[in-house]
Amino acid sequence: MTPPSITDQGRATRGRIVAAAAALIGERGASGTSLDDVRAATDSSKSQLYHYFGDKHGLVQAVIDHQSAVVLGAQAQALDGVQGWRDLERWAGWMVAMVERQDGRGGCPIGTLAAALADTDEQFRAALSDVFESWREAIGGALARLRDNGLLAADADLKQLTTTMLAAIQGGLLLAKTSRDSAQLRIALEGAIAQLRTHSVSDEHRARRRERG
Amino acid sequence: MTPPSITDQGRATRGRIVAAAAALIGERGASGTSLDDVRAATDSSKSQLYHYFGDKHGLVQAVIDHQSAVVLGAQAQALDGVQGWRDLERWAGWMVAMVERQDGRGGCPIGTLAAALADTDEQFRAALSDVFESWREAIGGALARLRDNGLLAADADLKQLTTTMLAAIQGGLLLAKTSRDSAQLRIALEGAIAQLRTHSVSDEHRARRRERG
Repeated sequence: MTPPSITDQGRATRGRIVAAAAALIGERGASGTSLDDVRAATDSSKSQLYHYFGDKHGLVQAVIDHQSAVVLGAQAQALDGVQGWRDLERWAGWMVAMVERQDGRGGCPIGTLAAALADTDEQFRAALSDVFESWREAIGGALARLRDNGLLAADADLKQLTTTMLAAIQGGLLLAKTSRDSAQLRIALEGAIAQLRTHSVSDEHRARRRERG
Repeated sequence: MTPPSITDQGRATRGRIVAAAAALIGERGASGTSLDDVRAATDSSKSQLYHYFGDKHGLVQAVIDHQSAVVLGAQAQALDGVQGWRDLERWAGWMVAMVERQDGRGGCPIGTLAAALADTDEQFRAALSDVFESWREAIGGALARLRDNGLLAADADLKQLTTTMLAAIQGGLLLAKTSRDSAQLRIALEGAIAQLRTHSVSDEHRARRRERG
């Protein structure tokens, strides 16, 4: 029987290698990162990489899982607290601030992987599509709370509005990283929130009152 | 003096190599495509590649220029004819149909290059940022015609609306390619057009009449 301490150590080693591989792949892309690069950066052996990941495909899948956990973890935490418009704007501001802290670099780790891998590997494409689907669920949950709190019209198409929001995040992050200008993300998110607000209940009520008036 | 026929032949050879390299890089990424891959795919020699491009950096720059000409050429042609809302919707539908014809594959050649290269090479980043800037100008020109034709409010912030639209295109194309579902692009573009329409003059007039009523 393997003593628990070794299992823990193995898990820590694997985690350290995945985090380093994620950073390398974030910089150079999956196809620009070799197993030898990862070995050199993590001071690990060929047999260790084989033991933990099998081959490069297994390592890239582990990087996708890692980035998915990081991004979805942070997004779910930020979105779960959204109850009103100001919370939604705070969430958008938090993403813009993140880009500013990185001087516009980085973009979305999931979006960058998807742009590179969706057309080259069907398994990676499906995995990244699942990540976007989970992200969509977290956004959709926040919009459903806005609706339940009486801020969004009951008949607003939350699925469509969620897709519009996720597209604004991805497009905004790509434009921001290419121009090194976080304002491009801010404008894209403000646009998506402005579109959401056209479905706000108070506006609707006001319009009805005008019609009746 | 070099006879013109040889110059023409040289230009054709260079163009053939660039187009093939663009296809390879579109599939495998810039870092996943070697000069040897390009030589094999184009049946060209090391000295030819050196003559036309210098090194791999020069070849990737040529691919960026090529994709920029293809994408901006098509976009400018489609956008230059936009005079009203229906033209704008036809432009959006044309992009969705393009994705459908490719079974959701491909995404935006410029967006894919930008996602991979913006954080790895400053010269490529600046070149791709210029491409987005030119694209923005073409979109901005279409929106200015909508305004001049009395369809968009005179005080609508065309710069912001243009950025929102380009972010919707890029985010929608990335989501569509990752999910293999062109509807994600369609929804993102419809969202951006819906947001534009909140600045339409007719709506504004109607609202003013209601307020007066």
